[in-house]
Amino acid sequence: MRLATLLGPDLKEILKEDPDQARALLEELHAEDIADIVSELEPEEAAMLMQRLQPQDAAPIFERLEEHEQEDLVEAMPPESIARIASEMEPDDRADLFSTLPEEMGDRLLETLSRVDPVAADEVREIEKFADTAAGHLMTTKYVSVSPRVTVRGALDAVRAFVKEHSESPVYNVHVLQDGALFGLASLRELVAAEETATMADVVRQNVISVPPDMDQEEVARRMAKYDLAAMPVVTTDGKLLGIITVDDIIDVLTQEQTEDVQRIGGVEPLDVPYFQTSFLEFIKKRGVWLIILFVEEFFTQTALRYYDPVFEAIKGASYYVPLLISTGGNSGSQSSTLIIRGMAVGEIKPKDWWRIIVREMGMGLVLGLILGTIGFARVLMYRDQHVNFALTIAITLVGIVMVGCTVGSMLPLVLKRAGIDPATSSTPFIASLVDVLGIIVFVHVAKIVMASVIAAAGGPVVH
Amino acid sequence: MRLATLLGPDLKEILKEDPDQARALLEELHAEDIADIVSELEPEEAAMLMQRLQPQDAAPIFERLEEHEQEDLVEAMPPESIARIASEMEPDDRADLFSTLPEEMGDRLLETLSRVDPVAADEVREIEKFADTAAGHLMTTKYVSVSPRVTVRGALDAVRAFVKEHSESPVYNVHVLQDGALFGLASLRELVAAEETATMADVVRQNVISVPPDMDQEEVARRMAKYDLAAMPVVTTDGKLLGIITVDDIIDVLTQEQTEDVQRIGGVEPLDVPYFQTSFLEFIKKRGVWLIILFVEEFFTQTALRYYDPVFEAIKGASYYVPLLISTGGNSGSQSSTLIIRGMAVGEIKPKDWWRIIVREMGMGLVLGLILGTIGFARVLMYRDQHVNFALTIAITLVGIVMVGCTVGSMLPLVLKRAGIDPATSSTPFIASLVDVLGIIVFVHVAKIVMASVIAAAGGPVVH
Repeated sequence: MRLATLLGPDLKEILKEDPDQARALLEELHAEDIADIVSELEPEEAAMLMQRLQPQDAAPIFERLEEHEQEDLVEAMPPESIARIASEMEPDDRADLFSTLPEEMGDRLLETLSRVDPVAADEVREIEKFADTAAGHLMTTKYVSVSPRVTVRGALDAVRAFVKEHSESPVYNVHVLQDGALFGLASLRELVAAEETATMADVVRQNVISVPPDMDQEEVARRMAKYDLAAMPVVTTDGKLLGIITVDDIIDVLTQEQTEDVQRIGGVEPLDVPYFQTSFLEFIKKRGVWLIILFVEEFFTQTALRYYDPVFEAIKGASYYVPLLISTGGNSGSQSSTLIIRGMAVGEIKPKDWWRIIVREMGMGLVLGLILGTIGFARVLMYRDQHVNFALTIAITLVGIVMVGCTVGSMLPLVLKRAGIDPATSSTPFIASLVDVLGIIVFVHVAKIVMASVIAAAGGPVVH
Repeated sequence: MRLATLLGPDLKEILKEDPDQARALLEELHAEDIADIVSELEPEEAAMLMQRLQPQDAAPIFERLEEHEQEDLVEAMPPESIARIASEMEPDDRADLFSTLPEEMGDRLLETLSRVDPVAADEVREIEKFADTAAGHLMTTKYVSVSPRVTVRGALDAVRAFVKEHSESPVYNVHVLQDGALFGLASLRELVAAEETATMADVVRQNVISVPPDMDQEEVARRMAKYDLAAMPVVTTDGKLLGIITVDDIIDVLTQEQTEDVQRIGGVEPLDVPYFQTSFLEFIKKRGVWLIILFVEEFFTQTALRYYDPVFEAIKGASYYVPLLISTGGNSGSQSSTLIIRGMAVGEIKPKDWWRIIVREMGMGLVLGLILGTIGFARVLMYRDQHVNFALTIAITLVGIVMVGCTVGSMLPLVLKRAGIDPATSSTPFIASLVDVLGIIVFVHVAKIVMASVIAAAGGPVVH
């Protein structure tokens, strides 16, 4: 399936023997496939190949490399060559490159770029003003625009000129600007179908869906998905068109945001690069932080069990049910939290819905708790030596614990969101550890009521 | 932000007083916003509104409703009216409607559609031959195609005719067919820029990226994202063009697949509809199944603890460390499983990589276990009454448990994938419960070796 694995070794041979032949071969392939091949090469080999290509041919390949591969090439190639390639890159991809490079490396490259292509360097500085995850950082400043007085024929001529200059940039819409402000837009399809002599003012749609440059990329993605747009204009509050965001970037955003969410839910600090490219040390850091936090959180289970020692001493075998009980609370909490986290990510759930959610979740906790409680009751009674009151304790505890799990699991993501923290940070392990401690408290207090006589016989309730 | 909440109540009033005015109002809005409004109406009101619209105006609104809202409308409206709307829908959205309707309801509607628009009904039957999640089910059969001998001017005329007939369908590419087989394609942008008198055979790109109709939608999405395509041709093995998949459908696929993955990871059977639209009973079923499975899985912790009773009796306080220890195993397992599940979802990790993964994960488990073991060792020694051998037992157990967690967490998703089961089914709670039992076994065996003398003093190791 991957051309890279197929061609990689042969290409290396060809490269050594006749580099120009390699260039001819590459002309037959898609930029994406060439990027795959470049990924498989050693940085020095990749650098050699990229330097042999014309900057305008190298740019679309370079754009499609992983961040760490781009960094390797920046290190392996002369700054001049990289600057020439950067000059030919799409403005948004170019800005991305600079925002991911280590600061010093980026500054040095930007200096070289200022000499090679001052306009491109200025564009980088403009885009870098916006947050990494804002619409302004995602947009390209290459788009087709005309004035409202231009005819449809004139607009199509403008498209022709644009395609000639930017052969790699897609064109979905023609933007009509009046004094720099976005007056309206027409899709290429609409233009082709329109009367050639009509003016653009007559054919454009004016109720244009657009986004402000500081809007978060996840919200931009949701809006583009909702309106089925292939390109979204980025417009300031006073109506000025800054650039456009194309749908291919939105797919990347969705995938990246989703990866981060899943990793947070699993209790890992999001990785910047794919699994196999992440260094061992990086993994230890990103996983270790959370494992230590969760480990310390779990200290409280040990402290609580030790504190309630007299109760567990009094009820023979009670401590063996602790993992079963508390993990059930954690499971119901994990369910609730993932439902709420995902609901917020796709925009179905807002923090203000909290009261509707809590009512539902407590109701669900009650019913699910009763179901599990019944199973648990039956399970305990299977042991002949267990008191029926103990079976009852387990059943009631399960109802309480599942309700606690549903409540904590559903509310914590909302609280985090309100506090401006990514709700996915309330990972399933975090919820589980939190509910573990609460579960022990529920268990002991239910036991103290239901099994008062047993505990009294064993020396009275020492715990209050 | 949502027009719907703003306009909803007013619209209802207008609807009652003067329905035609409502139609005029709706002409000003985007189909997506009208769909939002329709969602807020009661099914009867929505049905009344939809019936007043021309079928070609109603279709784009109906397409954008949630599945359960479409179902409500099919029930509330005369079959004839729905069939007329369905006749105007995009072929892929139409096929979607039929595949989500309850079987009997769908069959009845298809019968009516066969009378109203036999061609559309045949299209539904064609598309329904493919699996729900296959490329063939996702494609639309509305696309522009010409023969290779046609000039660019002729191709643009074909686009014009297409836009006139299908005003709602996007046009990104013109397909060149020779004897029904896909010869090549040209983007609209390329056509506009090309010489009008050239023939299509001269201007098209021939190394077209396409997908077979039975390819899974996730793979289609990955491929479209990789090649930055706005539309992807669906082509049979003998080269016949069946239809095209547009990027807006791919965004929907990505979002839906991601929601399912997150819910599975959280231990919930994927929901078909948003959180607030899911019925209470549906939730009890989708959550209850997994809670019961996990509950039964956790029985083994109780059984194991009971089985190893003599060891816990001999080592005072040991049982209080059980939740701390086993949940740490679960946490490291959750981390590994989410990393692997996500890596497979985005295509970075393949089951054949298993040996590279197991080496890495065991290494990580060792290092992470040593870090936590050190913390755990210090923690135990903070209690003056604890034996140093017990602190050592906790430390060694942590190393073992974290290694088990990493191994099980990383391998289970790969095993499931190999077995043709969605790897996300190895949810974090499932991994945690599995590792819980293994953790107890590790703990007891480490204790029996390190604390042999203590156990012997208390009556000797009764467990083998």
